[in-house]
Amino acid sequence: MQVFTPTQTLDFAHQLADGARTAILPFFRAGGVIENKASYGFDPVTAADKAAETAMRAMIRAHRPHDSIVGEEFDDHAGSSGWTWVLDPIDGTRAFIAGTTTWGVLIGARFEGRPLVGIMDQPFVDERWSACPDRAMWTRGDARQPLVTRKNIDLEEALLATTDPFLFSAQQTTAFMALRGACRLTRYGLDCMAYALLAHGHIDLVVEPGLKDVDIAALIPIIEAAGGVVTDWQGRHHPKGGNIIAAGSPALHAKALTFLVGA
Amino acid sequence: MQVFTPTQTLDFAHQLADGARTAILPFFRAGGVIENKASYGFDPVTAADKAAETAMRAMIRAHRPHDSIVGEEFDDHAGSSGWTWVLDPIDGTRAFIAGTTTWGVLIGARFEGRPLVGIMDQPFVDERWSACPDRAMWTRGDARQPLVTRKNIDLEEALLATTDPFLFSAQQTTAFMALRGACRLTRYGLDCMAYALLAHGHIDLVVEPGLKDVDIAALIPIIEAAGGVVTDWQGRHHPKGGNIIAAGSPALHAKALTFLVGA
Repeated sequence: MQVFTPTQTLDFAHQLADGARTAILPFFRAGGVIENKASYGFDPVTAADKAAETAMRAMIRAHRPHDSIVGEEFDDHAGSSGWTWVLDPIDGTRAFIAGTTTWGVLIGARFEGRPLVGIMDQPFVDERWSACPDRAMWTRGDARQPLVTRKNIDLEEALLATTDPFLFSAQQTTAFMALRGACRLTRYGLDCMAYALLAHGHIDLVVEPGLKDVDIAALIPIIEAAGGVVTDWQGRHHPKGGNIIAAGSPALHAKALTFLVGA
Repeated sequence: MQVFTPTQTLDFAHQLADGARTAILPFFRAGGVIENKASYGFDPVTAADKAAETAMRAMIRAHRPHDSIVGEEFDDHAGSSGWTWVLDPIDGTRAFIAGTTTWGVLIGARFEGRPLVGIMDQPFVDERWSACPDRAMWTRGDARQPLVTRKNIDLEEALLATTDPFLFSAQQTTAFMALRGACRLTRYGLDCMAYALLAHGHIDLVVEPGLKDVDIAALIPIIEAAGGVVTDWQGRHHPKGGNIIAAGSPALHAKALTFLVGA
């Protein structure tokens, strides 16, 4: 059995992202169909989700038949290569439904449990954030930039993001509002885009409750390779979902974590 | 003095939007400079704002010297043609700072006080929503779609948007939370993009407090030409800022307004 390197795995992940784009884009802003969901059972975001995950699973089975697969839409597949793909074909389904361009395709790969390879792709804008341990890049067509988080940012200068401020419990809301009050600026509604822009050096903190493994697995390698930190609210690395904090630097992570650790 | 039609004015507004793109894009995601604001006095979003408004004002002075100008960055200019340009070079400066693609260039034109021409342009994604009374279009490169709001949506099916839920006063928050509870889905953080996507048929309601004239002037013609309704929370048409509600249809507008009228 061939042993694939992280770099080879990232190269293949780019092919998966290309396949997902082709599957998803016909459904984006396919106007006028959402309101038929109740009456006709057609939901474009679910259709796009399933089409993309089906396409990616078929590519993995064909080219990496011994890898495991964890996906949002279908059952887990157990392989023996040590590599596990973690797929969220559309992260930000509500953004997708609203027609915004802040959703993304999440493709992560863990080797023996370690999150080493990740892609966040925005098909409509044609932006992609990708990483393996020795390479973290933003690409758009022929344009490319290395991903490096913003450093030397104090809490009072930090730009904080969370997707929906009403997802926190009462106790979590108190903690989040205190953190929000300590930061310079807070943005909402970004889903996976917030983590991509953190790796890109534009956002400094992302704080969210109750994520799933597929929501964060692909983003951990990107943020870590760019110099950032992702943990749960107890400070544990490589979380498989749960309450998440991402920061551009270890120092900022430590400061922000003090607001969340008991919540 | 030549009298310009709304169609001629929209054609010229497209030229202004092209000029604004050229002025703004070099500053977008110009990474690593935000943190120098305090120490060096350089703020890329203000620089981009001023560069774009300067470029648009120069074009108006050269080609439409008798038009009035209201802009965010510089003093009002009084003309005699009956046409007034209302310019917000970057609506969504916080989104711009965070590197998201939900900000836009707003270019409105009123004739004798009536909002007839509007453009919302997203330079980075290359998307533009534009309208005069007989034409409402989305364009991206060679692609184009007519703008038509979504109709026959009940409140419980509606997709609601507001940029920042913490901008409401206490009484407004109570009203907004009741409306939010009555709708199917609420999205945050979209600034002008929410209104553009309402005209496009993807979002059904936008509710925001305390807007300025330049925040809404360009969006009114787009929403009205697409079949939607924009008023203040007292139901008055053609508001020059204030508390704003936009809806995809008159029926949905009337239902949502009942939540806000006393707030």
